Amino acid sequence: MTLDDLTRMKEMRRRDRAELDRLLDEELAVTLATVTDDGRPWAVPMLHARVGDRVLLHGSTGAGALRRVADGAEAVLAVHAIDALVLATSLFEHSANYRSAVVRGPLVRLTGDDAVAALDALSDVLVPGRRGELRGHLPKELAATVALALDITDDNWLLKVSDGDVDEELDVVPDDVWTGILPIHRSYGEPVRSPWLPADLPAPPSVDALRAAGPQRRGGRRGQRRGTNR
Amino acid sequence: MTLDDLTRMKEMRRRDRAELDRLLDEELAVTLATVTDDGRPWAVPMLHARVGDRVLLHGSTGAGALRRVADGAEAVLAVHAIDALVLATSLFEHSANYRSAVVRGPLVRLTGDDAVAALDALSDVLVPGRRGELRGHLPKELAATVALALDITDDNWLLKVSDGDVDEELDVVPDDVWTGILPIHRSYGEPVRSPWLPADLPAPPSVDALRAAGPQRRGGRRGQRRGTNR
Repeated sequence: MTLDDLTRMKEMRRRDRAELDRLLDEELAVTLATVTDDGRPWAVPMLHARVGDRVLLHGSTGAGALRRVADGAEAVLAVHAIDALVLATSLFEHSANYRSAVVRGPLVRLTGDDAVAALDALSDVLVPGRRGELRGHLPKELAATVALALDITDDNWLLKVSDGDVDEELDVVPDDVWTGILPIHRSYGEPVRSPWLPADLPAPPSVDALRAAGPQRRGGRRGQRRGTNR
Repeated sequence: MTLDDLTRMKEMRRRDRAELDRLLDEELAVTLATVTDDGRPWAVPMLHARVGDRVLLHGSTGAGALRRVADGAEAVLAVHAIDALVLATSLFEHSANYRSAVVRGPLVRLTGDDAVAALDALSDVLVPGRRGELRGHLPKELAATVALALDITDDNWLLKVSDGDVDEELDVVPDDVWTGILPIHRSYGEPVRSPWLPADLPAPPSVDALRAAGPQRRGGRRGQRRGTNR
């Protein structure tokens, strides 16, 4: 069940930028990995948004962890989705259908109007329409926030996708061992409103739209094939 | 909406080992981060299983990426779950409820009976009961597989949890802006059986049990509060 086994037939490196974009768009968070001053690995999850050829991140100016990458240290953004479990006739051939990508840094720290635009874009991707329901940024809020960007170029990313059926090299396929795929779905649950709200205040359009679209934002999800009656 | 902002009141570092275990058990994959020979960050997602005080991983002996950590290079396992989106009265206070942990290496490469036991344990955690439905390992399969372990000690891990309500410091709380939490759920879909199976072969007990338990394995999920009528 390894995710790092490039020898499998059905698991392939892809150079499909649209597929990279879809993965980045569907996942809410990436793992930001870098190397500390004393040469040690370091990793932290962060919410993100892809806008065109950029991945946008933000954090607190007080977060020391971000300072190093904001100052240009090389970084890797890793993102993955586990789409299904794959059950085969042997443990060895069990695996997961997944999509995995890394985009390599360095990150750029955005300032001034660029930073504001990035924060707005992050919001517009994460909760479309929400920004129009709220007041604008306050200066002290902007001062407390770091906005970072990592540009996606032609050659700074790697995408791996495993989305096949059960695929075993068998001389005789046993017909008494169930094999198949167990898809994994995500969905939003019922919104939980703050207790101080008036009872007749409805959920806003942004929340309704987000629930209708689901956590797999923009473009649906791979590998969600029709189920059978088993 | 930062995940790296330790200044927020509701976001806290935790020293709760049971909560760390629950996160590791609920998530199928971790991100393994390390530093390459030439000092660059490197990260890859991997299926994993926690068994007691160990996190088990496995991969192909052919995967060069794993060789370095198998040889004792320092590694970080990063794992996170995004449990909900938190919608506040300002963009600045928007965030996610999440759980995030890192466990710091080095990893140990397991051999002989220890490796076999680790592969069995990985299977038993990922798809409980499946192993009893299948033949045993073949020698060539074991030879092609690397099993790795990372021990969880008293002080080699860090857990951060944000699971609060909307929590804003406001002199006057506006009662015309909807605020609240949008939970994110995961579930297994209908199994998709291999096309060559006889029509009357039912899904095995392991698949039925896994679907009943859901992708949040062992111990349910935090932050899944009862929804309201909005």
